[in-house]
Amino acid sequence: MGSSPNSKPKIIRGSAGYVLEDVPHLSDYIPELPIYSNPLQDNPAYSVVKQYFVHVDDSVPEKIIANKDSPRGIHFRRAGPRQKVYFQSDEVQAAIVTCGGLCPGLNTVIRELVCGLYHMYGVKKVLGISGGYKGFYAHNTIPLTPKTVNDIHKRGGTILGSSRGGHDTTKIVDSIQDRGINQVYIIGGDGTQRGAYRIFEEIRKRGLKVAVVGIPKTIDNDIPVIDKSFGFDTAVEEAQRAINAAHVEAESVENGIGVVKLMGRYSGFIAMYATLASRDVDLCLIPETPFYLEGPGGLFEYAERRLKENGHMVIVIAEGAGQELVTESIQAMHKQDASGNKLLQDVGLWISQKLKDHFANQKTMGITLKYIDPTYMIRAVPSNASDNVYCTLLGQSAVHGAMAGYTGFTSGLVHGRQAYIPFNRITEGQNTVVITDRMWARLLSSTNQPSFLIAKTVIEEDKKEEEDSFNL
Amino acid sequence: MGSSPNSKPKIIRGSAGYVLEDVPHLSDYIPELPIYSNPLQDNPAYSVVKQYFVHVDDSVPEKIIANKDSPRGIHFRRAGPRQKVYFQSDEVQAAIVTCGGLCPGLNTVIRELVCGLYHMYGVKKVLGISGGYKGFYAHNTIPLTPKTVNDIHKRGGTILGSSRGGHDTTKIVDSIQDRGINQVYIIGGDGTQRGAYRIFEEIRKRGLKVAVVGIPKTIDNDIPVIDKSFGFDTAVEEAQRAINAAHVEAESVENGIGVVKLMGRYSGFIAMYATLASRDVDLCLIPETPFYLEGPGGLFEYAERRLKENGHMVIVIAEGAGQELVTESIQAMHKQDASGNKLLQDVGLWISQKLKDHFANQKTMGITLKYIDPTYMIRAVPSNASDNVYCTLLGQSAVHGAMAGYTGFTSGLVHGRQAYIPFNRITEGQNTVVITDRMWARLLSSTNQPSFLIAKTVIEEDKKEEEDSFNL
Amino acid sequence: MGSSPNSKPKIIRGSAGYVLEDVPHLSDYIPELPIYSNPLQDNPAYSVVKQYFVHVDDSVPEKIIANKDSPRGIHFRRAGPRQKVYFQSDEVQAAIVTCGGLCPGLNTVIRELVCGLYHMYGVKKVLGISGGYKGFYAHNTIPLTPKTVNDIHKRGGTILGSSRGGHDTTKIVDSIQDRGINQVYIIGGDGTQRGAYRIFEEIRKRGLKVAVVGIPKTIDNDIPVIDKSFGFDTAVEEAQRAINAAHVEAESVENGIGVVKLMGRYSGFIAMYATLASRDVDLCLIPETPFYLEGPGGLFEYAERRLKENGHMVIVIAEGAGQELVTESIQAMHKQDASGNKLLQDVGLWISQKLKDHFANQKTMGITLKYIDPTYMIRAVPSNASDNVYCTLLGQSAVHGAMAGYTGFTSGLVHGRQAYIPFNRITEGQNTVVITDRMWARLLSSTNQPSFLIAKTVIEEDKKEEEDSFNL
Amino acid sequence: MGSSPNSKPKIIRGSAGYVLEDVPHLSDYIPELPIYSNPLQDNPAYSVVKQYFVHVDDSVPEKIIANKDSPRGIHFRRAGPRQKVYFQSDEVQAAIVTCGGLCPGLNTVIRELVCGLYHMYGVKKVLGISGGYKGFYAHNTIPLTPKTVNDIHKRGGTILGSSRGGHDTTKIVDSIQDRGINQVYIIGGDGTQRGAYRIFEEIRKRGLKVAVVGIPKTIDNDIPVIDKSFGFDTAVEEAQRAINAAHVEAESVENGIGVVKLMGRYSGFIAMYATLASRDVDLCLIPETPFYLEGPGGLFEYAERRLKENGHMVIVIAEGAGQELVTESIQAMHKQDASGNKLLQDVGLWISQKLKDHFANQKTMGITLKYIDPTYMIRAVPSNASDNVYCTLLGQSAVHGAMAGYTGFTSGLVHGRQAYIPFNRITEGQNTVVITDRMWARLLSSTNQPSFLIAKTVIEEDKKEEEDSFNL
Repeated sequence: MGSSPNSKPKIIRGSAGYVLEDVPHLSDYIPELPIYSNPLQDNPAYSVVKQYFVHVDDSVPEKIIANKDSPRGIHFRRAGPRQKVYFQSDEVQAAIVTCGGLCPGLNTVIRELVCGLYHMYGVKKVLGISGGYKGFYAHNTIPLTPKTVNDIHKRGGTILGSSRGGHDTTKIVDSIQDRGINQVYIIGGDGTQRGAYRIFEEIRKRGLKVAVVGIPKTIDNDIPVIDKSFGFDTAVEEAQRAINAAHVEAESVENGIGVVKLMGRYSGFIAMYATLASRDVDLCLIPETPFYLEGPGGLFEYAERRLKENGHMVIVIAEGAGQELVTESIQAMHKQDASGNKLLQDVGLWISQKLKDHFANQKTMGITLKYIDPTYMIRAVPSNASDNVYCTLLGQSAVHGAMAGYTGFTSGLVHGRQAYIPFNRITEGQNTVVITDRMWARLLSSTNQPSFLIAKTVIEEDKKEEEDSFNL
Repeated sequence: MGSSPNSKPKIIRGSAGYVLEDVPHLSDYIPELPIYSNPLQDNPAYSVVKQYFVHVDDSVPEKIIANKDSPRGIHFRRAGPRQKVYFQSDEVQAAIVTCGGLCPGLNTVIRELVCGLYHMYGVKKVLGISGGYKGFYAHNTIPLTPKTVNDIHKRGGTILGSSRGGHDTTKIVDSIQDRGINQVYIIGGDGTQRGAYRIFEEIRKRGLKVAVVGIPKTIDNDIPVIDKSFGFDTAVEEAQRAINAAHVEAESVENGIGVVKLMGRYSGFIAMYATLASRDVDLCLIPETPFYLEGPGGLFEYAERRLKENGHMVIVIAEGAGQELVTESIQAMHKQDASGNKLLQDVGLWISQKLKDHFANQKTMGITLKYIDPTYMIRAVPSNASDNVYCTLLGQSAVHGAMAGYTGFTSGLVHGRQAYIPFNRITEGQNTVVITDRMWARLLSSTNQPSFLIAKTVIEEDKKEEEDSFNL
Repeated sequence: MGSSPNSKPKIIRGSAGYVLEDVPHLSDYIPELPIYSNPLQDNPAYSVVKQYFVHVDDSVPEKIIANKDSPRGIHFRRAGPRQKVYFQSDEVQAAIVTCGGLCPGLNTVIRELVCGLYHMYGVKKVLGISGGYKGFYAHNTIPLTPKTVNDIHKRGGTILGSSRGGHDTTKIVDSIQDRGINQVYIIGGDGTQRGAYRIFEEIRKRGLKVAVVGIPKTIDNDIPVIDKSFGFDTAVEEAQRAINAAHVEAESVENGIGVVKLMGRYSGFIAMYATLASRDVDLCLIPETPFYLEGPGGLFEYAERRLKENGHMVIVIAEGAGQELVTESIQAMHKQDASGNKLLQDVGLWISQKLKDHFANQKTMGITLKYIDPTYMIRAVPSNASDNVYCTLLGQSAVHGAMAGYTGFTSGLVHGRQAYIPFNRITEGQNTVVITDRMWARLLSSTNQPSFLIAKTVIEEDKKEEEDSFNL
Repeated sequence: MGSSPNSKPKIIRGSAGYVLEDVPHLSDYIPELPIYSNPLQDNPAYSVVKQYFVHVDDSVPEKIIANKDSPRGIHFRRAGPRQKVYFQSDEVQAAIVTCGGLCPGLNTVIRELVCGLYHMYGVKKVLGISGGYKGFYAHNTIPLTPKTVNDIHKRGGTILGSSRGGHDTTKIVDSIQDRGINQVYIIGGDGTQRGAYRIFEEIRKRGLKVAVVGIPKTIDNDIPVIDKSFGFDTAVEEAQRAINAAHVEAESVENGIGVVKLMGRYSGFIAMYATLASRDVDLCLIPETPFYLEGPGGLFEYAERRLKENGHMVIVIAEGAGQELVTESIQAMHKQDASGNKLLQDVGLWISQKLKDHFANQKTMGITLKYIDPTYMIRAVPSNASDNVYCTLLGQSAVHGAMAGYTGFTSGLVHGRQAYIPFNRITEGQNTVVITDRMWARLLSSTNQPSFLIAKTVIEEDKKEEEDSFNL
């Protein structure tokens, strides 16, 4: 029985500065758990595979840029099937839950968890929790079989339904205990993963043999450590339609401006990659970049110059960009304008209005502005082929980890290898675009937009991590 | 020389109640125009075609539903090449202009006018007027050749640019005269066609040998007489994406409502056809339908019922629906809330807000509403294959008509046949969905939505035309 | 009870040369059938519609090109709901069968028949016949409800399965009688419609109260009288991908030739419309056009010229083009080459080989030829929005007709109006491209290909119908 | 001046078993080359980026799976801009050539090379070599500017044209010398990269200051070391259409078999990933897997079982699968059947014929087989968003490397990081699917197909590399 209030990080050290940040295991707090042979070794599909099982010491480095004498640095446990498992097939009662906003690939992950459990490990009892976390105690469960999930990867959304916000950890763990669930697969963003951590802690405190596994979901790609989140590729692809449309609209009138708002409350990856992939964008604004409207080096000045040079322009703005500017604007308005001005908290509508007002006041240049918000059209598409394969790997890695008795971990891709990452590394911060790094420079070079940076900002940014996992 | 201030309709009568509403001809007001053989008869592609030239008396009926003894009714002149033409190839100086909002197919029509003039009649001088009507006098022209327009049908928008609003008929006709233009092809909506009529009248008054030809453009399909406008098919197709996304979003949460705003300021054809094609829609609101929010038989009541029955719902609303309700709402608000509440004049944002407020006040049912406005993403796509073929026919018919000396007409499809329609028939009214007709009944039957109709309305509607051209 | 061996055409005449080719009715051979009020008049969706029911005398003309004193010509009975019906809702036992090759929209038609019967007329007993005609006696039936067919229009293919070829009319009618089926909806091509006619004749002979309704299916659009067949639009759209790919491949090498084979065994509509919509095609070959390879004016000469002028070329060939040339070629080969040469009966592989051989022998010009056969990729896509709406109308018209007691008819669109057409008019001939008509001339003008015609051919063609229903 | 006949690998060693396989540098064989400051440091887009330049010692490991005391292994030089460059902007005369078959993304790479040279380094002289390697001496060059390449990434194919086969290294280097070209960017597959290596050797022998840079192109993903090749993602995505179509066709008939041939002459990555992404496939055959038709455990037996169980099946076959079986079959045929049987060398047509023959002979089960070859439709599509971003990185890395004086290298992604890889590592072998590794086991598990493996094979395979770069 676990006596510590919080589980401590498990750290293992090796030669030349090698560090392994390991994940919890059921045997950490439950003594003398029985161990079984992995049934995969009798599976015709796997039996011919030599060295199929992951070596017990395999790990994946967090950073891969090396110098010839640099320390080897932090590593994570490599994902994959183990020689020995801690669950018998007919003992497993798995549960799957999806939380938070939609993201392409949710159904594919659900499908692969169900099919992975069934086909690889012979697990037949899998429950879908309906409508997010609170479904553990507020709704009926949905039995899931390979047959019922067979085609769901061709549909957007989540067949389980989802919800945001409040839930009661105690009631969830009560329900897990009452229903005899012993593997919990939790698909969701950083808030959800924090919830998963609390569920894991509660389960550990109660000493239950229940593996808690997170599958990180964030269409914004703002989860740290992992290469990228599932659905991100699909989202960037789908965003091209909106940018193309904005470009066509802008090009077809004199001084046309096309504004596209894309997802990204705290990090601008979708906006940045969509801009890089498209090349029709003249200005990309993300939460990580400061910007200002008026005066020299400001947005209005740049817009005027672009229109004069080119006759039209396309702006991509992430939903979390310029939040302080928006807040200032709203505060400057009359208090009594309830519902209407609430809409201006939408940065896309806000910047569109600001541009219209500016050019109307300035009077020398009539503009035609078209605003496109493709958010829900992007979120709702089914995952593309690349995300489908990625979701398969994520789902299968999660299953292998739970069967092997690991718990309190997230399944994720690190430098193209599946790894098991401790919850705290996933939830302790946010992956953001490092605007003093090379990818953003590529973007600036491709759009020719002003950097909006002044010396002070750069110095602050400088303290940030230089080499984040997504900057190639 | 034309002495009458306005040209009168040309009416021809035949047996059994046959009436032909004919279009003007250059020879109506210019005597002794020289006549030439149609160069198509020496064209290898056409020369093998027997009876290639349209019979001088061919016409197309406005209505085709017949009873065995009913009168034959109104007909239009059939479009197509004539044995004799009124222009020599090297005499022609054509101009093409696009006006108003974007619509899939604009570039295809431009391409086909240029290629049709060049390949069929050997016309080499074609000018593009840039930026709409005012481009006649405010911008440089763009020379157009088959080579420069070769691939433009694969792009959305219009390579000529467009604009809305005011223009000066006298200055346009001055420019036509000064530049030696003698065929003017005007692509635009009903406002544009009215402008084309004034240009035609002015040219007629001045006695100029200039053919003025309209090609009707309206993504809303609200132009009367013709079967459907180009780009409509593409728009309905593209609208499916937005409806699908709304459906996925709505399905994935408890009491999810997906709202999609579609084009249609005065007529709801896109909304109606997109709803019929999709079948995932629970409520379709168009300008032609009255509706109300509160009380028995109202929208709120229906929404509550649908959510209770089905857990989610999808609403499609045309931009012009419920205008009087929106206006009332806006007036009830504080005056000082300038820019913010202006946004609520957007019926999609307005109804979304109303639904949110209703369910927030009502307190028993928490909803999650997602609003999608795909308008600019729809307008900006290139035309699909079906619209491409249609644009070819429209463009070629327009060219045949101008070469044959007809003027003051619009080229359009009537019951699947190209016809020449007098301007006044195109601009005198609007094609609207007849909500007491069968197509709308099909929609009501497919969505199960309330009719919102009360006896009074029906009786008024009853006086309207029963059998409009689009009701199959 | 019907005494005549074969039902005779029902002809009705009116003023000014009006002729109605009517369809059979159950009451033609069963006396004193009870008549009921149409339940639609109590349906909330329909009850507000004034003049909702089709007037008993409404008809649609076969030809619409008129001259002021021409006779009014042949008409068909207009489709739609009738005031009086010949079946009670709970009396109906409907069956649906799909036969022949795949075509986009099959599932949509099935869906609309089931939903139309259910929602409009309260019919709850609908059986799906599985695997085509022989499913009547060789397979189990599949119960169909609005719920089971709700999403099938989003999938390609047919949920009922299909088959080609032989079936036994007597056994089918036995099964209809044994199972108590009284409405049979038969979706299929001209062979299938001929089978439907035999089934109708047998039913008529036995004096059964069973309505037999055909819904014409032909991706090739080769069924006469009707405007176009469902799925055709989708097929032309999807064919664009293959043509684009052929164009890209051809453009990227020196003397590149891209060959695309499209559907069309007896008529070249898909090839013609796909060529017109694309404009990247240099040569379009269809069954209706003669062509030859060698010598002046031949295909090889044209190919050489095109490659010299343009560096590449794209050829679209319908599967039924040049059949006599292919047969000659095959006969000239060795007899013993069983399976291999069978492949050359595929005209696309054959012409590709002929072109390669020609340029290899001719030695002065090395070509690179890429052959694309997208047939099965086109047939298998779901129907687009436009075909979805069309399938709705077809399905509902079929249901209205059967409920009203009509039988032995095909539901089809004539000049944009739904009509009931006697079987014999659908099966007596084939709709083909009239190569002396305007649409083909448009194509020749757009590709600049040789006409391959010599005087003799033209004169023969001349006797053909000038104005077929698809030539706009 | 280089005196050695062949350049030797440059190997650098560090602590704990670190090895760097370095790439050649112009200064290796040209002494006292002038060095310049990188103009990027004055570029507004880049100047704010701290630590923008790659550290001189940065490297990327070839393998990243680590154990805590394992040696650090082989590394490659990290790509990216260097503090110092070996070319002045106006001194550079760059040339770009594309060789071999089409692949999505070719135009994007061309675009990014031109724009990267221009916008990052101010290089204005860039020549396109037309029609592949032989274009160096047989065709005119095409001047390339940011303006001319601006939209080419939206089109498939290559604007430069391509060719396969023979070329003369001496004449190429003569042309490079004569035209004053000093940076050569060569986009092509392994044959092309071998050619690039010979060009580099010749240039080195002549002591020319010319950087030779390879950008690896292979739609098959068969180039070793790198994560994946550009266009691969797009190809897998596009292959889904064909698999879906095959599935729909197969499902719609009794005992339907859909066969899809995909690219992959020597390695089956596209077939494997397309199968994993789709999940509708019952059998995937690739060059790396042995298979046999007859007898227990053979393909026919499996097909019969699948059809009995499921009523239909889908087969994906890579073009290079089963080559020895095909050869045997062809040899068994009559010699005189020239052209026809040549077609059977196409493994897709061959296996389709074999299946048809088998079931025809076996007589108990009638099958309907549909064969789809989407190869040219896949190759010709434009690259998707993900490949677009990848092509940007590849192009820019190549430019940074050449400007920094590196030569004789290939630009490639290694574990998500751009690296410079010596030519010999790219051309010395082929990346193939390791069928005893986990990804293939995933596929077997997903399709349930037989492994066709017998003990002997497995043991042989066992000696192969266990952990290739693409097996996640």
